Amino acid sequence: MPFEITNELIEQVTSLIRQKDDTALLNILGDEHHADIAELLDDFSLDDATYVIKLLDSELTSDILMEVDEDIREKILKKLSAKEIAEELAELDTDDAADIVAELPEDRQEHVISHIEDEEHVKDIVELLKYDENSAGGLMAKELVKVNENWNVLKCVREMRAQAENVTRVHSIYVVDNDNVLKGRLSLKDLLVTSTKAQISEIYIPKVDSVNVYDKGEDVANIMQKYDLEAIPVVDENNKLMGRITIDDIVDVIKEEAEKDYQLAAGITEDVEADDTVWEHTRARLPWLFLGLIGGVGAAAIMGNFEEMINKHAVLFFFTPLIAAMAGNVGVQSSAIIVQGLANNDLKGSISNRLLKEFSLAIVNGLVLSIILFLFTWIWQESMLTSSAISISLFVVIIVAGIVGTFIPLFLDKRGIDPAIATGPFITTSNDIFGILIYFMIAKLILGI
Amino acid sequence: MPFEITNELIEQVTSLIRQKDDTALLNILGDEHHADIAELLDDFSLDDATYVIKLLDSELTSDILMEVDEDIREKILKKLSAKEIAEELAELDTDDAADIVAELPEDRQEHVISHIEDEEHVKDIVELLKYDENSAGGLMAKELVKVNENWNVLKCVREMRAQAENVTRVHSIYVVDNDNVLKGRLSLKDLLVTSTKAQISEIYIPKVDSVNVYDKGEDVANIMQKYDLEAIPVVDENNKLMGRITIDDIVDVIKEEAEKDYQLAAGITEDVEADDTVWEHTRARLPWLFLGLIGGVGAAAIMGNFEEMINKHAVLFFFTPLIAAMAGNVGVQSSAIIVQGLANNDLKGSISNRLLKEFSLAIVNGLVLSIILFLFTWIWQESMLTSSAISISLFVVIIVAGIVGTFIPLFLDKRGIDPAIATGPFITTSNDIFGILIYFMIAKLILGI
Repeated sequence: MPFEITNELIEQVTSLIRQKDDTALLNILGDEHHADIAELLDDFSLDDATYVIKLLDSELTSDILMEVDEDIREKILKKLSAKEIAEELAELDTDDAADIVAELPEDRQEHVISHIEDEEHVKDIVELLKYDENSAGGLMAKELVKVNENWNVLKCVREMRAQAENVTRVHSIYVVDNDNVLKGRLSLKDLLVTSTKAQISEIYIPKVDSVNVYDKGEDVANIMQKYDLEAIPVVDENNKLMGRITIDDIVDVIKEEAEKDYQLAAGITEDVEADDTVWEHTRARLPWLFLGLIGGVGAAAIMGNFEEMINKHAVLFFFTPLIAAMAGNVGVQSSAIIVQGLANNDLKGSISNRLLKEFSLAIVNGLVLSIILFLFTWIWQESMLTSSAISISLFVVIIVAGIVGTFIPLFLDKRGIDPAIATGPFITTSNDIFGILIYFMIAKLILGI
Repeated sequence: MPFEITNELIEQVTSLIRQKDDTALLNILGDEHHADIAELLDDFSLDDATYVIKLLDSELTSDILMEVDEDIREKILKKLSAKEIAEELAELDTDDAADIVAELPEDRQEHVISHIEDEEHVKDIVELLKYDENSAGGLMAKELVKVNENWNVLKCVREMRAQAENVTRVHSIYVVDNDNVLKGRLSLKDLLVTSTKAQISEIYIPKVDSVNVYDKGEDVANIMQKYDLEAIPVVDENNKLMGRITIDDIVDVIKEEAEKDYQLAAGITEDVEADDTVWEHTRARLPWLFLGLIGGVGAAAIMGNFEEMINKHAVLFFFTPLIAAMAGNVGVQSSAIIVQGLANNDLKGSISNRLLKEFSLAIVNGLVLSIILFLFTWIWQESMLTSSAISISLFVVIIVAGIVGTFIPLFLDKRGIDPAIATGPFITTSNDIFGILIYFMIAKLILGI
């Protein structure tokens, strides 16, 4: 039975806020899941949302804050005192706390941190702030359960109980030596089935996947996905255990990565959501549209150079949108396959093999489509020569577009640039220009003008 | 230290296969992770891959089979006897085993199943085969740890140990009543900290999220993501516990869903990967290209109707690719935002609000771009009237394209059709035609021909 936000619920809660009926509010909201309340607050005015945050217990509100939209969180945090924010941070795991601190204006960060009472927590948060937010270090939490290889199971269980208090979910128990170097892991299941006198060093599993603090978030996601891991320990260059990353954070990375690529393919440069302001959408959309405009102007300029053909062969000009569209479509298809292959790390073989394949594919598609177009134009215009010019051009354009669409993302990737920017408007626009240039050159050649 | 497939490794392993040096092969491969071996096999010939599968222990090969590419798995399974496949299935969790059985030709399914010795396992697999593969029932495994609310902790721990043998990862312990109705859950952590004499009914957490066997995979993914769950129990309409879904399967659902949407936006209709055959790619790409061709022909036909304008205002024809491209780009941007909003379930407000917003956005973008285009064409052609006709048309086309791009996915979604098909070539093509029609109609109006 999923939670549903009804208009009645919104009205009920907002009217209780107006009446400042805190008891009733606590009754309604106190038992809800933080993710549900966050969804509710996304629909509220800033004042109402802040009211709810100040009213509820910080154990609940800290989780709510992590779930609301980033821009709403920013605004609510502005309305809270440094001390109030510190209370929220105290309830959060170190990774979430560090994320919130990083979102605060720099002059406020230190002030807020100074109000957190638990010094260990402060030290951990400050450490995590060092790492880039898209690195393993930026994704990891300091909370984990670790045991020393020299302990026995009994001591291990005792220590674990204490540590587990601070850890939301125990996946693996990491085994370290006296220098905190990661040696292996234990599963809770193993502990359940082993004698309490056994030495940890005798029962731990020495094989454990780990990532380095500086590894990229996407790489961590790929590893966790490939090996079906639910948590992975993060180590430094000396293999010392620094933290752990859990799958729920990786799910967010995968989702964000996919959305970013999707938006890039659709010609949207910044991360926007449907409910962002018109101004934010303009900023995200206008750049690629402007690029498209330049491309269109370029295409017009090219056609201007072939103006002399317009009297004898006006029909050529009728097919420019078709040529441009096909060049764009073929380019987008090819580049999308490459971008996905690169992201999933499953592109095998050399660049020239890849181009050869795309070439054969373009020949097949090009042949089919050119023959259809030839038949259509022939029936329509009854001119063998014009029809040949148009359909042969289409054939060549499809091949060039396929190769360009394959080559550009591969090239960008080699240069260390995100190949996803090569999809969508970028390929469409450059292929528009290429396509129309090739089209008129071939037409000129065949029609001999 | 991630595993890397080097050419040396491939050569070494294939030459050992040629020499039938099984001992050396077992030495090299026996200790590798099944996901790594699967990656290796993806590069092998079918005979070599089958050789490796037959050589290694089925505990390892069953997992390898789950990881290799679907088409490679299909071919390998053809080379294995029913008995050999049954041995693999015996090692797999019920959800994976059912997936493999479902991939077998129908006449082979029963034969293979009849070779599995564990009757309980057979019963579970047969049950799972009933469900659609994209439903919660199709994603769930029968393996889980459940305890009766009437037991005490001691009995619970004893029973759990026995059950845990069959369960790869224990996330939650589900609590049921005598009729197998889901009552709540226990965490392993709780068990660690509770007295062994306590009654389960006193200590379990009665709040537990669950999904119905017939819920869609995407909905399960949204719920697990929203509530950061690592496993969710699946119940039938009477709330009886049927199975559980773990996050690693959901990660695959999220990933596949994102890839499908991305490919649809790029005009690719079937799920293809870079390494699929030219034929598979043609089948996936040709349909949308054909649609684009039809659109281009439509655009040409429209222009044919305005042929009389070509003598006086040839320049109008130079800008048709620009108009078509802009109509396409704006439409794709708008539809992408809607498709994402629908997928993430965060589109709020009514359809008319949504259209109004897209309308304002189009006015802003349209104004900026039209003014730029006006200036350019004025400088180029020095005709106020033609420049006005072109840039006013662009303005109107951008507005219409934005509204069409917003409306179509919303409309499809209301009709229960996947709105993702409305992105990419579909929007581009229809907007090309719209755009060019509007363009020439406005030009005719302004230029009065």
